[in-house]
Amino acid sequence: MTDLSTTHHRSKVYVEGDQGVLVPFTEVALGASTGPAGDEPNAPVRIYDTSGPGSVPTEGLPSLRRAWIMERGDVEEYEGRPVAQRDDGRAAVRRDGPRREAFPNTGRLPLRSTGTAVTQLHYARRGEITPEMAFVATREGVDVELVRSEIAAGRAILPANINHPESEPMIIGSRFLVKVNANIGNSAVSSSIDEEVEKLTWATRWGADTVMDLSTGPDIHTTREWILRNSPVPIGTVPIYQALEKVDGEPEELTWDLYRDTLIEQAEQGVDYFTIHAGVLLRYVPMTAKRMTGIVSRGGSIMAAWCLAHHTENFLYTRFEEICEIMAAYDVAFSLGDGLRPGSIYDANDEAQFAELSTLGELTEIAWRHDVQVMIEGPGHVPLHKVVENVTLQKEVCHEAPFYTLGPLTTDVAPGYDHITSAIGAAVIGMAGTAMLCYVTPKEHLGLPNLEDVKQGMIAYKIAAHAADLAKGHPGAQVWDDALSKARFEFRWEDQFNLAMDPATARSYHDETLPAAPAKTAHFCSMCGPKFCSMRISQDVRAYAAERGMDVTTAVEIGMKEKSDQFRATGAEVYLEPSATGDATSA
Amino acid sequence: MTDLSTTHHRSKVYVEGDQGVLVPFTEVALGASTGPAGDEPNAPVRIYDTSGPGSVPTEGLPSLRRAWIMERGDVEEYEGRPVAQRDDGRAAVRRDGPRREAFPNTGRLPLRSTGTAVTQLHYARRGEITPEMAFVATREGVDVELVRSEIAAGRAILPANINHPESEPMIIGSRFLVKVNANIGNSAVSSSIDEEVEKLTWATRWGADTVMDLSTGPDIHTTREWILRNSPVPIGTVPIYQALEKVDGEPEELTWDLYRDTLIEQAEQGVDYFTIHAGVLLRYVPMTAKRMTGIVSRGGSIMAAWCLAHHTENFLYTRFEEICEIMAAYDVAFSLGDGLRPGSIYDANDEAQFAELSTLGELTEIAWRHDVQVMIEGPGHVPLHKVVENVTLQKEVCHEAPFYTLGPLTTDVAPGYDHITSAIGAAVIGMAGTAMLCYVTPKEHLGLPNLEDVKQGMIAYKIAAHAADLAKGHPGAQVWDDALSKARFEFRWEDQFNLAMDPATARSYHDETLPAAPAKTAHFCSMCGPKFCSMRISQDVRAYAAERGMDVTTAVEIGMKEKSDQFRATGAEVYLEPSATGDATSA
Repeated sequence: MTDLSTTHHRSKVYVEGDQGVLVPFTEVALGASTGPAGDEPNAPVRIYDTSGPGSVPTEGLPSLRRAWIMERGDVEEYEGRPVAQRDDGRAAVRRDGPRREAFPNTGRLPLRSTGTAVTQLHYARRGEITPEMAFVATREGVDVELVRSEIAAGRAILPANINHPESEPMIIGSRFLVKVNANIGNSAVSSSIDEEVEKLTWATRWGADTVMDLSTGPDIHTTREWILRNSPVPIGTVPIYQALEKVDGEPEELTWDLYRDTLIEQAEQGVDYFTIHAGVLLRYVPMTAKRMTGIVSRGGSIMAAWCLAHHTENFLYTRFEEICEIMAAYDVAFSLGDGLRPGSIYDANDEAQFAELSTLGELTEIAWRHDVQVMIEGPGHVPLHKVVENVTLQKEVCHEAPFYTLGPLTTDVAPGYDHITSAIGAAVIGMAGTAMLCYVTPKEHLGLPNLEDVKQGMIAYKIAAHAADLAKGHPGAQVWDDALSKARFEFRWEDQFNLAMDPATARSYHDETLPAAPAKTAHFCSMCGPKFCSMRISQDVRAYAAERGMDVTTAVEIGMKEKSDQFRATGAEVYLEPSATGDATSA
Repeated sequence: MTDLSTTHHRSKVYVEGDQGVLVPFTEVALGASTGPAGDEPNAPVRIYDTSGPGSVPTEGLPSLRRAWIMERGDVEEYEGRPVAQRDDGRAAVRRDGPRREAFPNTGRLPLRSTGTAVTQLHYARRGEITPEMAFVATREGVDVELVRSEIAAGRAILPANINHPESEPMIIGSRFLVKVNANIGNSAVSSSIDEEVEKLTWATRWGADTVMDLSTGPDIHTTREWILRNSPVPIGTVPIYQALEKVDGEPEELTWDLYRDTLIEQAEQGVDYFTIHAGVLLRYVPMTAKRMTGIVSRGGSIMAAWCLAHHTENFLYTRFEEICEIMAAYDVAFSLGDGLRPGSIYDANDEAQFAELSTLGELTEIAWRHDVQVMIEGPGHVPLHKVVENVTLQKEVCHEAPFYTLGPLTTDVAPGYDHITSAIGAAVIGMAGTAMLCYVTPKEHLGLPNLEDVKQGMIAYKIAAHAADLAKGHPGAQVWDDALSKARFEFRWEDQFNLAMDPATARSYHDETLPAAPAKTAHFCSMCGPKFCSMRISQDVRAYAAERGMDVTTAVEIGMKEKSDQFRATGAEVYLEPSATGDATSA
C-alpha cells in the first residue's frame, strides 16, 4: 500500500505575485485517479489561507508590509500618545498597579501621514498599484486592475493600517471572495489576554479574514496590543467600547475629546477598521420605542443614551469630518455601524433601521471625499424573504460601498444554534452581494464564545461564504468542490479528508463506522457496505463503456442485445468487490 | 423568589378539533412581563409537536386512527401475505434460524380496500372531511376546507396507510408548515433493531414529521415492524432496497413479481409512503456518464443497473399502473424518487436530472387518475443560485404535486458539516415552495448517523423549515419568534430556555458563563456584564417615557431641555442596577 501521508497532504505554499509579493495558500496534494486505462494524476488544489506565518505570542509576527509602507515616502515616525492607566479601563484604574503583561517593545514608533491621505483608496484613485493590491490580486486569482479599480470606486476596501504591518493584505468587496469576520474580546465577567490571543490564532486557523476585538473588560489597551502584534489579518474595533470604559461605564460622560483621543490611541496601535455608530441620530432614537427588542447594538445604545441624556446630536455625526482626518492619516477604514439594527424577526427592515442606513449613505460620501475607505454594517435578525431588500437598498443608498452584515439570523427560536440560524441568512445575503459576513457562534445570546464556539462559528460562516462564492460564480471557487466531489466519486478517502474544510472531523466521522486503514482505500463506504454501492455502479457504467472503446451513450443507443448480454455476464464481478470482506461485514 | 419550575414550563396539551379529534401541542407557559406599571401576563405559546403519546417499544402505540378507518366502511380484514424468511434479507437466509425479535402480535389482521381507493385524495375529491383532515386543520391552525381542497387538488398529501393506525395525521404541501423527514435504518455494516426504534423515537422527539426506514441490513422486515408499531409519524421506505436484499444484492435478478410482493408486504405492515424510482428510464441513464459523480441515488443506480443488464425499460415505469392499484388499496402515497439527482455541485440541474423530472410529472397524472397521493423527490447538491429553478420547474412539470427535497447541499467542501451546507439550501428551497425537507446529518458522506447526529440533523432542519415558514408567512409561525424575542428583551431567561428549540442546550450554554441561579432573573447577561447592557438601555428609554405619561417620540420631539436634564439626573439609576453585583464581577 502507498504511504498516504506523503502522496496526499496539505501544506502551506507561497505563490509569487506582481512586485515580488509572496502570497500564502493551503495546497492539497492529491492522489491519482486509477482506472483500467492506467493512473491519471490530479492537479493540487490551492485554498485561500488566512492563518498567517505563525507566531510566538511574545514575539509577534514579522512586519511584512513595513518596507512597502516606508517606500511610499508619505509617512513619518513620531513619539505617539503616551499610554495612560485608564486606557486599560476602569478595572485597571481601580487596581492602580502597573500595566499587566505589556507586549514587549517592538522598537518601532507609530507612523502617521506627513500630509496627504495614506489610504489604499487614495493610491487607487491616483492609479497606483500598491504591493498590497498585487498581493490581493494573486490571493483572489483576479487581475490587479480589478482590485485597483474596485477600491478606487469605493466598491471594495483593503483595510491596512500603516501601524499594522504584520497583516497580510485582503480585500472586502462584492466582486471578490466573500469574507468572514470573527468577533473575539473579553468582557467584565470573563477571559484573559492569553485566551484572546489564542482565540485570534484559532479564528484565523479556521479562516477568519478579519477579527474584531470587542473587549470591554480589564486591560483593554494591552489586550489589543497583543492581538495586533500577533494578527496576520486586519483587526477591527468599536472604539466607543473603550471610551465608555474610560468614563467608568457612564455613557453620558462621554466627550468628543475623550473619543478622539481613543481613536488616535487605537490608530497608533494599528487597528485596521473602526466601527463607528455615526448614524444613530437623535431623531431616529424614538423610532425604536415600539420595537419588540428596542436597540440591541451595544454601540447604538451607548450613543442613544448619550443623545437622550444631552438632548444633543450624536457627536460621532457632528464631528464626522474630524474623524475622517484621523482615519486618513493612518489608513483606518470606516465600518459604519448599524446602531439601530433589528434584534428580532419582528423588528426587521423597519423605519429606524432604514432611516439610519440613509444617514450612513450620506456619511459614506463624506468619508470618500477624505479618501477614507468605507464599509457599511448591516443586520441582525431578518426573515429570509426580507434579506435581499437589505442589500438592494444598501447598495443604492450607500453608493455600492461594501456591505458587512451580522448574519442575519433567519429565526429567533433556536438559541444555542444561532451559528446555523444565521449561516442561512449569511449565505443568502452573501449571494445577494454582501462583501463580508460577521460570524455568529453557538453562544450568541447566551454567553461568551470559547475556542470550540469560535471554530463552530467560523466553519458555519466559511460554508455560507463559500456557498455565496459559488452562487456568484467567483472564478475558481468551484475548483475546490469539483476536486472534492471527484475524490468522493473515486473513493480517494484521504483526498476527501484533506480537501475538507475540517479534515480531522471528516476523518474521525468516517472512522467511527469504518475504522480500519483498508477502508480508506476501499471502493465502498459505510452507507451501503461492500456488496452494493451507488457510487460504484456509476463507475462501472463508465468502465464498461470505456473497455469497449465507446462512450456510454453509444453503448446504450446502439441497443444491441449482445452488449446487454455481455454486461450481464460480467455482472457478478461488477457488483462484488473481490477483495472486500463482504460476507463478514454483512452478516 | 418565584418557583420557576411551576410558573415557567413546557408541557404536552391536547386541543380538541372538529369531529372530536384531540391534537397534541407542546405548550410553553410564560412568566409575566414586569414593569413600573405592574405585571402583565404573557399568553402561553403552543408549538407543533411530533413526539406522539410515548410508547413502550414492546407494546407499541395506541391505534388512534383505527376507529376512523373502520367507520368509513370501505376496508376489510384479510389473512395477509405470509412472512417468509427471506423478507428479513440475505443475512436472515444465511443465518437460517427463527426470525429475530418478532414484534408481539397486535391481534389485528391487515386491512385493504374492498373496492374503491381508500385514500385521503379519494375522500377529498368526493368532498368528504375525514377525521384525519380535521386533525391536520387544528394542528396547522388553518381552515379544514383548505386542507381538503389542497389534498383534492393534489397540492398536498396526507400520508396515512390504513395499516398504520398509530400515526398522528400530518400534511405535506406548500400551503402548510414545511415538514422535515429523518432517515434512519441499519446497513450491512452497522446497527440493531433496538437502536433503530430508539432513533425513531429520538427523531420524533426533535420534531421529525415523517421518518424513512432505509434499512438495508439484517432483519429488514422485522425492524420495520418494530418501527411502524412505535411510530406516531408516517413512515416511508424505498421498497427496492428490501427487494434487492431478497435477491442477495444482485440488481439484475430483480423481477416485477418479487417487487410487487414486497410492495404488498410493506403496505400490509403500514408503510405510509414509498419512494419509487420509476423515472429512471433506460434512455436517461447514459446522460449521467459525463457527470462528475454519476448516479448517487442508491435506488436510481439499482434501477440503472437493472435496465442496462436487461436492456429493457425500468419495470417500475412499465408496471406503474399496477403499482398504483396497490397504493390505492392501502392509501400508500407515492414519493416519486429522483434516481438521477445530482451528487455534486458540478452535476446540478443537468439534463439527466430534468429529463427524469419530466417523467415524474407524467407519472403524477397517472397516479392521480387512480386517486393515489403523490409527492416528488428533489436534489441533492445544488449551488444557491440554481436552487429556485428546481422548485419552479418541479411545480410546472409535476402539476404542483408537493416537492420533497434532500437538502440541497450548497457546497461539497465541508464533509462533517453537511447538516449546515444543506440547511442553507433547505431553507431557501423551502421558502420557494418545497413542502418537505429530508434532513442531512453531520455524518452524510462519511458514515451512519448515531443518536447525536440524528439530533443535530433534526435541529438544523427544523431551523431551515421554520425560517421558510416565516418567509412564506405561514399564519402563526412568527408567534414563536415574537414570544422568544420578547422574553429575551425582558430578561425572562427561563422563558427563553423553554421557548428554545433545544431548551437544555440553551440553558447549559448560558450557565457556562453565568452559572448562578440569580443570573436567570438578572437584568443583564454575560455579553456586557451588569453595568451596561444594550437591552437594558432600550427598556430604560421606554420606562422613562412611560413614567412621564408620554411615548418616547413625544418625549424627544418636544425637545425641552428640562426633560433632558431630568433624564440626566436619573442617569445613575438608569445605568446602574442597584441589586447587581456590579463591582465584584467587573473587577
